[in-house]
Amino acid sequence: MRHLMSPLDFSVEELDEIMDLANDIEANPKKYAHACEGKKLATLFYEPSTRTRLSHEAAMLNLGGSVLGFSSADSSSASKGESVSDTIQMISCYADICAMRHPKEGAPMVACEHSSIPIINAGDGGHQHPTQTLTDLLTIRSMKGRLDNLVIGLCGDLKFGRTVHSLIHALVRYENVKFVLISPEELRLPSYMREDVLDKKHVPYKEVVRLEDALPELDLLYMTRVQKERFFNEEDYVRMKDFYILDKKKMALAPDDMLVLHPLPRVNEISTEVDSDPRAAYFKQAQYGVYVREALILTLLGIQVDQ
Amino acid sequence: MRHLMSPLDFSVEELDEIMDLANDIEANPKKYAHACEGKKLATLFYEPSTRTRLSHEAAMLNLGGSVLGFSSADSSSASKGESVSDTIQMISCYADICAMRHPKEGAPMVACEHSSIPIINAGDGGHQHPTQTLTDLLTIRSMKGRLDNLVIGLCGDLKFGRTVHSLIHALVRYENVKFVLISPEELRLPSYMREDVLDKKHVPYKEVVRLEDALPELDLLYMTRVQKERFFNEEDYVRMKDFYILDKKKMALAPDDMLVLHPLPRVNEISTEVDSDPRAAYFKQAQYGVYVREALILTLLGIQVDQ
Amino acid sequence: MRHLMSPLDFSVEELDEIMDLANDIEANPKKYAHACEGKKLATLFYEPSTRTRLSHEAAMLNLGGSVLGFSSADSSSASKGESVSDTIQMISCYADICAMRHPKEGAPMVACEHSSIPIINAGDGGHQHPTQTLTDLLTIRSMKGRLDNLVIGLCGDLKFGRTVHSLIHALVRYENVKFVLISPEELRLPSYMREDVLDKKHVPYKEVVRLEDALPELDLLYMTRVQKERFFNEEDYVRMKDFYILDKKKMALAPDDMLVLHPLPRVNEISTEVDSDPRAAYFKQAQYGVYVREALILTLLGIQVDQ
Repeated sequence: MRHLMSPLDFSVEELDEIMDLANDIEANPKKYAHACEGKKLATLFYEPSTRTRLSHEAAMLNLGGSVLGFSSADSSSASKGESVSDTIQMISCYADICAMRHPKEGAPMVACEHSSIPIINAGDGGHQHPTQTLTDLLTIRSMKGRLDNLVIGLCGDLKFGRTVHSLIHALVRYENVKFVLISPEELRLPSYMREDVLDKKHVPYKEVVRLEDALPELDLLYMTRVQKERFFNEEDYVRMKDFYILDKKKMALAPDDMLVLHPLPRVNEISTEVDSDPRAAYFKQAQYGVYVREALILTLLGIQVDQ
Repeated sequence: MRHLMSPLDFSVEELDEIMDLANDIEANPKKYAHACEGKKLATLFYEPSTRTRLSHEAAMLNLGGSVLGFSSADSSSASKGESVSDTIQMISCYADICAMRHPKEGAPMVACEHSSIPIINAGDGGHQHPTQTLTDLLTIRSMKGRLDNLVIGLCGDLKFGRTVHSLIHALVRYENVKFVLISPEELRLPSYMREDVLDKKHVPYKEVVRLEDALPELDLLYMTRVQKERFFNEEDYVRMKDFYILDKKKMALAPDDMLVLHPLPRVNEISTEVDSDPRAAYFKQAQYGVYVREALILTLLGIQVDQ
Repeated sequence: MRHLMSPLDFSVEELDEIMDLANDIEANPKKYAHACEGKKLATLFYEPSTRTRLSHEAAMLNLGGSVLGFSSADSSSASKGESVSDTIQMISCYADICAMRHPKEGAPMVACEHSSIPIINAGDGGHQHPTQTLTDLLTIRSMKGRLDNLVIGLCGDLKFGRTVHSLIHALVRYENVKFVLISPEELRLPSYMREDVLDKKHVPYKEVVRLEDALPELDLLYMTRVQKERFFNEEDYVRMKDFYILDKKKMALAPDDMLVLHPLPRVNEISTEVDSDPRAAYFKQAQYGVYVREALILTLLGIQVDQ
């Protein structure tokens, strides 16, 4: 039995298979409409996350399965002091597969050790959020046609943003990938990412402070939010916040085929005027997020649909 | 693509078709049991409303579809500052139709502008609650056999009650309808309703303070709650509250074929001793609420079931 | 129409039929996979209980039915002052069967009087929790092969534990059952249970303070939690708490075929080192809880599945 704890749990070849499957689901949804009939997904969300929960639920429903679970810890046995390992042993009696979100790093890993059903880590604190990374990879591969030979801009909070770290881990496995790291000094990519991941794998990167300076050379731009409270002082925040807001004017500097991705929800780091730009891919990302989760559920359950 | 924002979004003829469909669903539920197979309803409830949420969910399940969503804003991305227009663009990837309840007037209308799926306004603040009005119309038409030639008593809080305002808007489109407005002075129907709707359309009405005075001439009585906090002073409330409580004694004054409706939940404005009276229609209303929502979902999704 | 309010609502013969059905469901799940197609279960949880709610939902989904409801009172009409009897009349329009949990003793009974659908009491305050008792009985019958001729140890809080009281009520109906009551003086089984139930039915029992003293003679041990706040003073708690923690060392004193049950969630009254002991039946109990609820739903809905 396999789980999904980190995007690196799958080899590049296995990821290719999952993405091929996701693209086939996109092209032939009806073929998969009954693939999980009689199967149940448990969504155990110890902290709320509408988007992540609903995308898993939509995926399971698209496959003809059903869903049960909870959307916050208040309504769970956790409030009675039950351990995650006991909860998962109970849930193993109620469902065939489980998506777990937990504020505590490593909780889904603990669950794996006691589970008799596959577990999908749907986010554990600031640690991992592997289905977001699968979504990002599928979006890039589907819309750019490749995951190698890319110049990738990562913009915003590169220090704390777990989606950015996960995406770097996932992309350095492909050939000829270059990163442009766009952030204020305070929110630079941490040295353990720069040295232990990028340098070690000889992946070229540069760091810039202003989005304008990076845009002209990018194949894709991955935007994230810059939270005010991350800054050391108000002055710095006011001085710099506009550097990291993507608008029409900045989009004019970017190549015609540059994609804009964002894990969502956004607050104001992408102006809504960009939404109608054909390069804006962040809502399509939400759609790819459903397809890739369908492919993941089928893979973890070992269900094959005849061609 | 169509949405339901206000009961006036549909012409009288279109409403008739929806109600015909609802009556056919009532008579032949099995015929529709798989009509929405593979379709998903998203229930986005930014404020809790069990009755409205569950009636939509029951409707979709009766049609063989499935349901996902959230039942309060706490467990939604709204708490992360996401806009309604971003949420609906995401939800458009997850579901085929959406029922939205929002404390802010106009929020579902904003959602429409960005949605690629039909949206049902399931209540926006004190503004609209169109599926309640469809429910009321279907109940009256099914149980009285007509929507014209009626003397309609509206009782209780006519000032703030949005269901009452919506119902008036909907009923003035039918021939020979008369209203008896039963309320304390403080809670009279507002002048913008009396002058701009009733007078303008030459719909006769009278205003009375005591329910007893109105009952003998009514074809139907629509009860609503009179909340203590709406009164200017305690004294007025104590003096008048019993005027607006329907009990067995008052029912004795009413015609044998007068219907009693109530949007529910009731608190004490209808005594439970009235529940067993054959004229009490408020629980049947709940049942009609499911049928009309089934018809609405089919209509908005453009699904036709062969005869 | 029948409801389930107390485990004694069914005769011993009727319980046997339900348990036979549950065992057939266990053996032939596919036979029942569409038995409730088109049927809806409403889960009305006025207080949260993940385990109980999800086990009912899993049961209904296993039967091919669907589920709607609420998981806490906050998101229900109860917060608008609606009575339980009004709520159930509404829910009767939305669903075919209902599982209700309520903090107030007797609430599900009130609901029964106004319901046109079967109601399962899923726990009402400290009063009853009949589906837990059915689960316990099925677990014992399935794993021991009988419900008579048993020496049963009940350990922990025997004063307030409603599952223990319910189980005693249910087991005294079988032949040659003996109880060993294992608890601190403060948490003894109340006299109304000892005198009015055990003595009256001439069921032999003894009371001991230490788990070790009871273990060697037991056919099954039913563990419950001892909550610190139940003790009169800290000193007593510290002195005695270890008496009621089951660990490997204590398990060595027990017969090879003694079963350990626990209604779950546990906190620390069973050491996790016992989990791998073949006599530990508490997680299997969770599985039997699903089967017995499937059998119950079929029975209350009057659905028979051909052999």
